[in-house]
Amino acid sequence: MIPFSEPFSEDERKGIYRAIYERRDVRSHFLAQPVPDDVLMRILDAAHHAPSVGFMQPWDFIVIRDPAVRRAVFENFTRANAGAAESYAGDQRKQYDALKLAGILEAPVNLCITCDHARHKGAGLGRKTSPMTDLYSTVCAVQNLWLAARAESLGVGWVSILDFDELKQTLEIPEPITAVAYLCIGYVSEFLARPELEEKGWETREALANLIHFERWGAQGDRK
Amino acid sequence: MIPFSEPFSEDERKGIYRAIYERRDVRSHFLAQPVPDDVLMRILDAAHHAPSVGFMQPWDFIVIRDPAVRRAVFENFTRANAGAAESYAGDQRKQYDALKLAGILEAPVNLCITCDHARHKGAGLGRKTSPMTDLYSTVCAVQNLWLAARAESLGVGWVSILDFDELKQTLEIPEPITAVAYLCIGYVSEFLARPELEEKGWETREALANLIHFERWGAQGDRK
Repeated sequence: MIPFSEPFSEDERKGIYRAIYERRDVRSHFLAQPVPDDVLMRILDAAHHAPSVGFMQPWDFIVIRDPAVRRAVFENFTRANAGAAESYAGDQRKQYDALKLAGILEAPVNLCITCDHARHKGAGLGRKTSPMTDLYSTVCAVQNLWLAARAESLGVGWVSILDFDELKQTLEIPEPITAVAYLCIGYVSEFLARPELEEKGWETREALANLIHFERWGAQGDRK
Repeated sequence: MIPFSEPFSEDERKGIYRAIYERRDVRSHFLAQPVPDDVLMRILDAAHHAPSVGFMQPWDFIVIRDPAVRRAVFENFTRANAGAAESYAGDQRKQYDALKLAGILEAPVNLCITCDHARHKGAGLGRKTSPMTDLYSTVCAVQNLWLAARAESLGVGWVSILDFDELKQTLEIPEPITAVAYLCIGYVSEFLARPELEEKGWETREALANLIHFERWGAQGDRK
């Protein structure tokens, strides 16, 4: 018996699984079409309802639409990506260079989600034994937003190829705050049927069975 | 136009928002009722379809049902929680001691989700500038599972009050692997209308407006 809420209907269950299976890390398919404020607020509120250690809610959201700010972040990305490319050689380097890895300028909304390690909310509950849990909570907020965005037909791309110290300077983020995620958000021309890195042959999906252990960690056979 | 998939129906959208708003960190309301294998596999597959940096898929899943293993983890929790309680005094200590913070023995399934920092999948893409992204990817898997579980009427509780070195020994997790999340999973007698820590007066929810900045980090007024 579930007094707070009825079991999910078949279509409601389908919705959550569709969001999970059809969510993509979008880099190539953003449209210029603006994101209405009410839609943006819905996905931010979804993020704000993520779990957090001790109910700490350590996140902040910096919404970036200003082309000048996005240009600065794009230049940061371009330099960081040139550095990252140098670790690949031969065919892998060619393949890397052909990948599009960020939609900073094309996506009409960029969003930086941060973690305030010193936020007093939660009074430290749960953090003594696991100090990383404030960062983990912030990532839960990212994933809530990502899935809600999918249900709103919005694509989201997480840009990890950045000089994060420089990003913090650009966005005037105080020193003790961690910039966890830099996201590009917008409507898209399409959602790919498979992850873009899979479509383009960069990597394959592991079989789930190779990742499941029972009772204790065990040898996982032919895992790649 | 979205060739891969139609826009979400109203009920499908409702499903994802219900999962987000009605998800709870469950500690007190687990039922002994077993979790069928097919349901467990659905939520594990949802976790496996989380985003991951470079399509690295750094996660593993250790499914724990053995009461002896759960008992060992519960004893770990009990010691860790006694240590954590010592940081509170007076009324706050009384309030802390009255909280139930884990359902390790009551939940029929426990699940440890780990991160393999050395997994070669993804060939390091995206990790040069942001080495924490393998952990972040693993947390996205946790949140996917948590939301899918909610749609299956399964409660999930994340236990962060553990000696994680001891947990790794108990579960025979190799040294270089990080145990990111220890979860208790099972059907529940109820989902609370609000987070348990809010219901019990430990902490309040911040107003979303106080957490949103525009273009750059800005003063946030009366944020608590």
